[in-house]
Amino acid sequence: MYKISLLNEGVCVADGFHAGGVSAGLKQDGQNDVAFIYSDALCEVASVFTTNKMAAAPLKHFQAKGKFQTNFVLINSKNANAMTGKAGINDIDEILSHIPDVVNPVMSSTGVIGVRLPKGKIIDGLKLIDKSSKKPHEAAKAILTTDSYSKECAFKVTLDDGSSFSIGAMAKGAGMINPAMATMLCFITTDAKVSQNAMQDALDSCVKSTFNAISVDGDTSTNDTVILLSNAKSSAYDKDAFEDALHKVMHFLALEIARDGEGATKLVTYNITGAKDDTEAEVVAKALSDSLLVKTALYGEDPNWGRIASTVGASGAQAKEETLKIIFDTVCVYDKGEVFFDKEMEQKAAIVMGHQKFTIHCDLGVGDGKFKAYGCDLGYEYIKINADYRT
Amino acid sequence: MYKISLLNEGVCVADGFHAGGVSAGLKQDGQNDVAFIYSDALCEVASVFTTNKMAAAPLKHFQAKGKFQTNFVLINSKNANAMTGKAGINDIDEILSHIPDVVNPVMSSTGVIGVRLPKGKIIDGLKLIDKSSKKPHEAAKAILTTDSYSKECAFKVTLDDGSSFSIGAMAKGAGMINPAMATMLCFITTDAKVSQNAMQDALDSCVKSTFNAISVDGDTSTNDTVILLSNAKSSAYDKDAFEDALHKVMHFLALEIARDGEGATKLVTYNITGAKDDTEAEVVAKALSDSLLVKTALYGEDPNWGRIASTVGASGAQAKEETLKIIFDTVCVYDKGEVFFDKEMEQKAAIVMGHQKFTIHCDLGVGDGKFKAYGCDLGYEYIKINADYRT
Repeated sequence: MYKISLLNEGVCVADGFHAGGVSAGLKQDGQNDVAFIYSDALCEVASVFTTNKMAAAPLKHFQAKGKFQTNFVLINSKNANAMTGKAGINDIDEILSHIPDVVNPVMSSTGVIGVRLPKGKIIDGLKLIDKSSKKPHEAAKAILTTDSYSKECAFKVTLDDGSSFSIGAMAKGAGMINPAMATMLCFITTDAKVSQNAMQDALDSCVKSTFNAISVDGDTSTNDTVILLSNAKSSAYDKDAFEDALHKVMHFLALEIARDGEGATKLVTYNITGAKDDTEAEVVAKALSDSLLVKTALYGEDPNWGRIASTVGASGAQAKEETLKIIFDTVCVYDKGEVFFDKEMEQKAAIVMGHQKFTIHCDLGVGDGKFKAYGCDLGYEYIKINADYRT
Repeated sequence: MYKISLLNEGVCVADGFHAGGVSAGLKQDGQNDVAFIYSDALCEVASVFTTNKMAAAPLKHFQAKGKFQTNFVLINSKNANAMTGKAGINDIDEILSHIPDVVNPVMSSTGVIGVRLPKGKIIDGLKLIDKSSKKPHEAAKAILTTDSYSKECAFKVTLDDGSSFSIGAMAKGAGMINPAMATMLCFITTDAKVSQNAMQDALDSCVKSTFNAISVDGDTSTNDTVILLSNAKSSAYDKDAFEDALHKVMHFLALEIARDGEGATKLVTYNITGAKDDTEAEVVAKALSDSLLVKTALYGEDPNWGRIASTVGASGAQAKEETLKIIFDTVCVYDKGEVFFDKEMEQKAAIVMGHQKFTIHCDLGVGDGKFKAYGCDLGYEYIKINADYRT
């Protein structure tokens, strides 16, 4: 057995990690826009990237390295360095060459697509970086774009023999309904004595039910990136404990991203059960969390379960009117067949929808498949943010 | 050869067809909400329905008949009669039994899902129907829901030997971004001497590049229906002429639906070329016309081509940065590689986006596949309409 404790820290929680954020003039008003993570020992690296075929320059730069160890990650917001061709990759090499005494530094970017990085500003900003600083919150702020708050999480894991390791992380994501301008970045650090292979396996397994379970609107950004660094400064490691803690970190941050959906007022869990298999449950859960009609009904706090039924039916998954059950938290609004939704039930369902957090449970009644996805509502603020994002 | 002339008529243009609309009190303010089409000769029937697994009661009622001939179609708006189980099907039988002297009457519904039809009101409304009337515009108005205008089209086809037939149609659809509450209905009538098989083949072939090419937001309504009736009152028929005229009717109405997207201000053609094959071109075209980020950029008249590139990349189709070309009408904003988008080009592109109608052309540069899809922008009005549709 093992014990996991939540800490009020970020990406510097593990021994040997440093981080900070500076303002290089990419954002207005002197806000932080360049962050770094530095480890005083070399790190093994595990990663997950977007499947978008227009993957941004920093992803190509990273992936060209093959397997490697590093001690430095540089991150900028406001510009995604995507669709910038070879020039975009050269820009990264040039910027990173200005950082002294680091091994295999990598870069990550988020923001507008199709504009060259403001190289000069970033290189000037590098002079403000103090590699020895431990300012995780400053780093977490620097990576944000349209996010309304920063997203951090850290746990300490204590094993039975008294040894311990930590996992800390920061993420950005302006909502799952905001995929094409670099939906999400996440950086995770640990001092656990974990092999590269074990790290990569744990990351792959956790990503499915965390970041890949928040709606990305059927779209996948050019810059989605999760990077996990381990410097093995602690001698401690336990596979189950590590995976458990890693999952907790990623689950927490994934929900933070969904909750901060652009203009969102609600965090909704889509709990799908009774599907033909887990894959079909996932298809249904994501169809619901992506549906404009469901999202706008959530925003209007309108218990319009017909839209949910229709979206289930249109998802392609095996489903039928006669076996479907729809429950808002504990209020069952449709149960396998005839219509019984009346004014009283509508009022009860509307009360559930007034909450900031609730669950829409659909049991398809055709098998044992299940999946949980997370989404938010869509209101006027989303249009406002996205109708003219670049200005 | 043959000649096709546009007429200012609707579903009564062909010999022997009658139509009209009445107010049965389903809509407020005495607006028409029940329509009918009647033919004084029995008709062959061809049809295409939604693939939604929660298909509405009228679709099940229709499909249970197998192949049949009819002379009467009843249509109501305001209520979709979907998710209403066996009771919903029985309601249809009961309503249709009140119409005297018709053969195999069928029914079609559009509106809110999950509420039983107001049977009594509709049956009372039937008394107002005069089967001999020829009021296609009244019928076209009665089938609308959140549509802002009615949609009709009619052509007369004259063959070389001087013989002729006509095709007339009406449709409703409150925009492709509005799928779950019965996106679209279309009723087409003709007096061409066409066999049921030939009619069904022509309908299947036309639907792909017309109604199936307007964005339905990845979703497919519970009530989507296209019904084509022929009473063969004219002795004329020519396969090519018939298919050409039918395609013209359906193409016109499909674009009318896209243009009337809820809250929409623009009709955009997504012209995809150079895809691996036509199927992949269709995937890309639909991904673009469904993308919230593209739609909101259109609304903001923001030439943010990065969102288009990202959506192409995320669509799953074969594509790469080095071969992609993006053109707004005639303004090329991205051409296979390095970034050259400057303020001057941005202004030119913004002028194109200010138009009510324009084309976004993406050449993927990997093959010969092509497809055209049609969509609109998404603004505040969409949220307003959909946040509380039922009230």
